[in-house]
Amino acid sequence: MDNFSFYAPTYFAFGKGAENRAGELVEKFGGTKVLIHYGGGSVVRSGLLDRVKKSLSDAGIGYVELGGVKPNPRSGLVYQGIDICRQEGVDFILAVGGGSTIDSSKAIAAGTLYDGDFWDFYEGKQVTKALPVGTVLTIAAAGSEGSPDSVITKEEGMIKRGASGPAYRPKFSIMNPELTCTLSPYQTAAGATDIIAHLYERYLTNTKNVQTTDRMIEALIMAMVEETPKVIADPYDYDARANIMWAGMMAHNNSCGVGRSQDWTSHQIEHELSALYDCAHGAGLAVTMPAVFRYNMKHDPARFAQIATRVWGVKDNGNVEETALAGIDALQEFLCSIGMPRNFEELGANEADIDYLAHTCCYGDAESDGNGKVYGFTVLSEEDVRNIYRLML
Amino acid sequence: MDNFSFYAPTYFAFGKGAENRAGELVEKFGGTKVLIHYGGGSVVRSGLLDRVKKSLSDAGIGYVELGGVKPNPRSGLVYQGIDICRQEGVDFILAVGGGSTIDSSKAIAAGTLYDGDFWDFYEGKQVTKALPVGTVLTIAAAGSEGSPDSVITKEEGMIKRGASGPAYRPKFSIMNPELTCTLSPYQTAAGATDIIAHLYERYLTNTKNVQTTDRMIEALIMAMVEETPKVIADPYDYDARANIMWAGMMAHNNSCGVGRSQDWTSHQIEHELSALYDCAHGAGLAVTMPAVFRYNMKHDPARFAQIATRVWGVKDNGNVEETALAGIDALQEFLCSIGMPRNFEELGANEADIDYLAHTCCYGDAESDGNGKVYGFTVLSEEDVRNIYRLML
Repeated sequence: MDNFSFYAPTYFAFGKGAENRAGELVEKFGGTKVLIHYGGGSVVRSGLLDRVKKSLSDAGIGYVELGGVKPNPRSGLVYQGIDICRQEGVDFILAVGGGSTIDSSKAIAAGTLYDGDFWDFYEGKQVTKALPVGTVLTIAAAGSEGSPDSVITKEEGMIKRGASGPAYRPKFSIMNPELTCTLSPYQTAAGATDIIAHLYERYLTNTKNVQTTDRMIEALIMAMVEETPKVIADPYDYDARANIMWAGMMAHNNSCGVGRSQDWTSHQIEHELSALYDCAHGAGLAVTMPAVFRYNMKHDPARFAQIATRVWGVKDNGNVEETALAGIDALQEFLCSIGMPRNFEELGANEADIDYLAHTCCYGDAESDGNGKVYGFTVLSEEDVRNIYRLML
Repeated sequence: MDNFSFYAPTYFAFGKGAENRAGELVEKFGGTKVLIHYGGGSVVRSGLLDRVKKSLSDAGIGYVELGGVKPNPRSGLVYQGIDICRQEGVDFILAVGGGSTIDSSKAIAAGTLYDGDFWDFYEGKQVTKALPVGTVLTIAAAGSEGSPDSVITKEEGMIKRGASGPAYRPKFSIMNPELTCTLSPYQTAAGATDIIAHLYERYLTNTKNVQTTDRMIEALIMAMVEETPKVIADPYDYDARANIMWAGMMAHNNSCGVGRSQDWTSHQIEHELSALYDCAHGAGLAVTMPAVFRYNMKHDPARFAQIATRVWGVKDNGNVEETALAGIDALQEFLCSIGMPRNFEELGANEADIDYLAHTCCYGDAESDGNGKVYGFTVLSEEDVRNIYRLML
């Protein structure tokens, strides 16, 4: 096991009605003037935004608002948010929404305290300070409610990049599973796929003998495999929603990823898809993961075989590669069974874009080294990445 | 799933040489004058104490010392520690040792800031403030390095009681698995048993549909079952020590116990054994758990059957009670295989004390309601508790 530090000081208020604690929690963490940041639509229609505002008002906390966050959140709104925070003297950002809203909030939080362009953080500059962020989570997916990460898409060129730093961990996250019951089956499944991807990307490690975190990751995937079909069948299954919501946070706060190398190849290759086609990140991952895993399987068949037998119930027939592939097949069949796309066509992607996608992935990404390689479980060249996209046809 | 709050703001520095960060971390969390609290023996002989002192000195942090903590830590040393902290103007307590040292440190931390007798906290008074505590962990067992809990034994009457509160969460914990390599096989196994007990006590819930935390608990038990025999066979197996150390923290920081009722019957019944006989807490739990579980099995055979099939590899033969019991048998055989005692005789307990043990457990414990009942997975009367002790003969 590798040496590591782990520090996850986010306060989680979980359960029915938890959004009514927003005011109390902003106060607890020192906020006096809040930017409420959100998308729109259901957050407004459902009355959630009003309940949050009332909670703030009841606690004597002032606020301004900025709605309009879209999936794959954009840099333009971040700049707007930074301007508002500076003009209004905002000292706390409250994200009401899903991963996109939370990630946008984090970017605003860092940008407000930074003299330069916030995009610097998404090109590799360390996030060292940010306004405190709290969240009221409305979809179990990104895990941003408990993570130090944020992903933003720059509108010029539709470039999707991530930034990370301890200052990005939310001070608190309000997690009421009821708020997720009105999500469509497709949104629900895309969120579940993102959670499963966060687990797989940690599972695919080159660090040996990491049994405890292996077992934790397997446990969370199994819970997702058990609970997701329940909420697809009955969106108002509160307990299943609650299980998924806690699993989504645990999948990405990194307690199951410490002390081991991680992958993130699937995320990097997927980011080009959701940036170009504006598809749901989870849907893109459903198509990307099986292709990446089949391509990378021979790097360590035993690792794929282990998850195949432990999670997917594949019987080990003595041929480790067959066992490994059967596990990848089982993953893909599961994702399709909850309504996720199987290939480029179902995702709405075009074969003709593959050269562009592979090139952007290998040369345009801050996580790459400029030499056109993607580093993760394996080292992939542009040709490898093209081959992986072709496996998605 | 029940509503809950979860807040675990402990910084973990994990890995080889992490103890050399003691000074940096005390400074990070605001300490300027430290009480170094420890047991003795190996912490001194191994040079660990000197390395910690050097790290503090290098960071310009002053310290005083108090050694002498014993297993099942006593109130007498806590009073001494409180006096020292007050006289010396200590503002940070650094525990160098295992659960006993950490629990004693927490008691000193609360007592120093309290006008009354610190024992009040162990008779049910809420811990609302305490000096900050950091730890340098030397055994994977109690989980106190990441928990808000402390257990102290009052010398008058040898009464062992717990206290809990957010102020008891350590600010940081240094976890270097190398420091545990010199533990005896018996100490190692007793620690592992305590970890497994923390998991079982959370598993035995009356809350329905808590699949995510069920799976997490099962995962951590499986990791313990896989890794513990490795370190019994080879005490210097670093990776296995590391897996156990992280599992021990995760088992008790409560991320796998949120939103569900918990048990703690085995801990309560065991506390009388280690208080009276001064045996290792883990050894007492090895004898107690199977007895409690066999006695309580009929309350929810399916719960015991689930862990039997998922963790212990018991084949479900269709008879849920047989499956459940086979799982309890497997747990006991595992604990015996790592060198833990099986019964009263092997533990050094006396049948003649059963009436006393059961009475103290039911009437002397702050966790009981004074009506002689033990509340947990089931409600146990004094007669039930006597019967459980008899099952340990």
